[in-house]
Amino acid sequence: MAAHLTTGAVGRELSALSARRVQPMGPASFAGNAAQALSGQLKSQCPRQVGIPSQVTDKRRTQQRKVTTAVIAPGVVPVIPALPENGRGASGRRVIIIGGDGYCGWATALHLSARGYAVCIVDNLVRRNYDAQLGLDTLTPISSIHQRVRKWGEVSGKAIDLQIGDICDFDFLKDVVVNFQPDAIVHFGEQRSAPYSMIDRAHAVYTQHNNVLGTLNVLFAIKEFKPDCHLVKLGTMGEYGTPNIDIEEGFLTVTHNGRTDTLPYPKQGGSFYHLSKVHDSHNLAFAARAWQLAATDLNQGVVYGVATDETTADPALINRFDYDGIFGTALNRFVVQAAVQHPLTVYGKGGQTRGYLDIRDTVRCLQIAIDNPAAPGEFRVFNQFTEMFSVNDLARIVSEQGNRLGLDVQVKSVPNPRVEKEEHYYNAKHTKLRDLGLEPHLLGDNIMDSLLNFAIINKHRVDRNLINPAVDWRKAGSASGTMTAAAART
Amino acid sequence: MAAHLTTGAVGRELSALSARRVQPMGPASFAGNAAQALSGQLKSQCPRQVGIPSQVTDKRRTQQRKVTTAVIAPGVVPVIPALPENGRGASGRRVIIIGGDGYCGWATALHLSARGYAVCIVDNLVRRNYDAQLGLDTLTPISSIHQRVRKWGEVSGKAIDLQIGDICDFDFLKDVVVNFQPDAIVHFGEQRSAPYSMIDRAHAVYTQHNNVLGTLNVLFAIKEFKPDCHLVKLGTMGEYGTPNIDIEEGFLTVTHNGRTDTLPYPKQGGSFYHLSKVHDSHNLAFAARAWQLAATDLNQGVVYGVATDETTADPALINRFDYDGIFGTALNRFVVQAAVQHPLTVYGKGGQTRGYLDIRDTVRCLQIAIDNPAAPGEFRVFNQFTEMFSVNDLARIVSEQGNRLGLDVQVKSVPNPRVEKEEHYYNAKHTKLRDLGLEPHLLGDNIMDSLLNFAIINKHRVDRNLINPAVDWRKAGSASGTMTAAAART
Repeated sequence: MAAHLTTGAVGRELSALSARRVQPMGPASFAGNAAQALSGQLKSQCPRQVGIPSQVTDKRRTQQRKVTTAVIAPGVVPVIPALPENGRGASGRRVIIIGGDGYCGWATALHLSARGYAVCIVDNLVRRNYDAQLGLDTLTPISSIHQRVRKWGEVSGKAIDLQIGDICDFDFLKDVVVNFQPDAIVHFGEQRSAPYSMIDRAHAVYTQHNNVLGTLNVLFAIKEFKPDCHLVKLGTMGEYGTPNIDIEEGFLTVTHNGRTDTLPYPKQGGSFYHLSKVHDSHNLAFAARAWQLAATDLNQGVVYGVATDETTADPALINRFDYDGIFGTALNRFVVQAAVQHPLTVYGKGGQTRGYLDIRDTVRCLQIAIDNPAAPGEFRVFNQFTEMFSVNDLARIVSEQGNRLGLDVQVKSVPNPRVEKEEHYYNAKHTKLRDLGLEPHLLGDNIMDSLLNFAIINKHRVDRNLINPAVDWRKAGSASGTMTAAAART
Repeated sequence: MAAHLTTGAVGRELSALSARRVQPMGPASFAGNAAQALSGQLKSQCPRQVGIPSQVTDKRRTQQRKVTTAVIAPGVVPVIPALPENGRGASGRRVIIIGGDGYCGWATALHLSARGYAVCIVDNLVRRNYDAQLGLDTLTPISSIHQRVRKWGEVSGKAIDLQIGDICDFDFLKDVVVNFQPDAIVHFGEQRSAPYSMIDRAHAVYTQHNNVLGTLNVLFAIKEFKPDCHLVKLGTMGEYGTPNIDIEEGFLTVTHNGRTDTLPYPKQGGSFYHLSKVHDSHNLAFAARAWQLAATDLNQGVVYGVATDETTADPALINRFDYDGIFGTALNRFVVQAAVQHPLTVYGKGGQTRGYLDIRDTVRCLQIAIDNPAAPGEFRVFNQFTEMFSVNDLARIVSEQGNRLGLDVQVKSVPNPRVEKEEHYYNAKHTKLRDLGLEPHLLGDNIMDSLLNFAIINKHRVDRNLINPAVDWRKAGSASGTMTAAAART
């Protein structure tokens, strides 16, 4: 098997695995926890490390990590260019990543750090608290942000600056911007779950407070303390809703009563979360115009996958992988459901079509946006996804691929907890990032196999109680919904 | 003169005044304060009350009010239909008015109460605090909300329920909705000044916090506790910005690449205040769709005038009239500037065109919206204005009319403190309220004369330091701008 493995990407590694038929396996088949399992997989890339024990003492784990660090680094992070350390990278850019402890943020932080950008992670770690509140957990056991950053330093020789704090606290944010003097701020630091925002009134208000006011603070911090800093803000394709016309990238040229103008593309967010991003977009457009800020709004589709070259460089660097009904997104959820032989939960008719992308493309899109900054005063929108699928498409793909791996994948329609069209036209443009050089990883058999095997390897960590949707759009009320969202799943 | 006066409207009364040329007059020419002056004018409507002394002792003022109450009521509020008290009015509707102590809110509360609606005013009185913060004051001395409501009860025989509290405090809002069981909620309760929102970061964040989260609370309160209640929400024409195509009422039918859809009209707010209303509109549209709420968004233009039939029924009922650079709006400001012989302050080129309406039409529009509610699940948008003017148009109208009254009106272009187009296409539709029965009061010589004379009568209360713009869009920063906004005017 090791012969197939030439890089550190779990995805590629596991796709090699899929050449053989994987039988359903219980936890006992694998190392005691997913980190160890993954660690074993990673080590397997180095011929000298094949056969890591499935259970290790703390002491042995420490030793193992040291070995990992020493041996894996050159092979696993082959893309790290030789750069002056702690200075400006080849790109010459200093980047703050707000929300750098999250799913997309962490992968992006490492991707950029590996390529010589000076990276500062800003995070209040509230994403971890959401899990605690709701009794959720990532499929992958993630290390503390402190351990992650320390380990990354050991693995890569690159220092990442870490600032723990809340951007809603402007004094904190101001200090970070003044001290770090970023060329770009990547802003992932928002509550990013639609169901979370629909748990109850308090969660809806929290989401718009945190997202909209936090972003206002970022705009003011840039305006005041680093006005030439390029803001790269994560939006969502969900801002557009599902109009019956083609979705363009941020703007729509309209001819109406004989006159023509190019206007912001009309927005129809489908949850208080999606709406928070709609609000952000409007605030950004104004700030760019009023203050000559440079801003890029990345309307991202649904991200799938877990492995990037950097997050697989060491078990302590592994990314989170959410499969629950609140933070899990469509494809990742289906993959885990298939792995544990839970019917794939299609909401309603399953005709809901959205844009999707591999997390390896997310990190690349961020780099492209940073390397090709908006002009001062420009508010620019990229639709950040690579392919469109309906939920039924995804269920079919996961079923077919799962069945090839020997899983018996069932598909079940469950009552749609959301208020959304279940059959609709959907055609969204996404050429701007391609034009700037994005080479997409499409959803082929390889990544599907990798993901399914990843889920199978880690399935002992799956809590089946977390799978079903726990938040109903129509039931969001003023009474606390936290316990319902945490406990009502069967 | 008294022969001309047949109703309680100061506007109509004063337009009679304008038949003679009014010379610039000092405070001494009038009663000691504007309330007394207005009181005198009001009394003059009743033949028995002609010739009120210009200075009255406290005792005499008390007596005067009693007489006013007793005598004015039948004549001044002729439109009050005979209705069962404290029950449902002729309209059969119970209405909460959030922000009922403000400029539009107060006038609307009285208008509806006079017509038999059961009215509950909800207000946190923060508008009065804004004035205190910034050293501003209304041209008219307004009574406390408690005095106002008490006086209205005496004058009209109608009780208005008064609830002092903040809708950002959900427990308070919930109690009000549960106890009052409104058929409609009119939501004026937002920070409504664009310059205020641009003072500094804290004021921007405050504005979006207060407006967006307060409105989220209203949506949840209706959804949970009175789901058939019709929400009538005040938006602003400023949400649309100045597109180069016709502005429709809330929605735009677009044909694009051979397909057609009707979508929310694209929004381009020009301040953090305007943007807060943009955010509200998106939240309302979603809540109507997701929860089958009935919602009307009134995209109101710039309101001018001060007198309505009800607010002129007693000096204690007089409405506020803002002329300062932060809360004063275009036409009202020009009128006061003309009265005190301050050059009219045109921002930049003066080609900025907007929709305008008389406050007597504001109250009528609200009634029309309430009487013709949206359907469950309907999010409906009315453009609430009656005429379009450029700033230069207004300056010319005020100059001409002021000069006819013997004022020497100058017009001065000042550097535009806002970021906005100063010459642009503007054509906004506004037929829906007309179709439902609105008969507009257009900006003719009568209302202009009334307004100018009203300002002349009260000009001893004008603080010239408050006239010039004190907030610059480009200078909004993180350091506190309160003292600059309060003190930098010359």
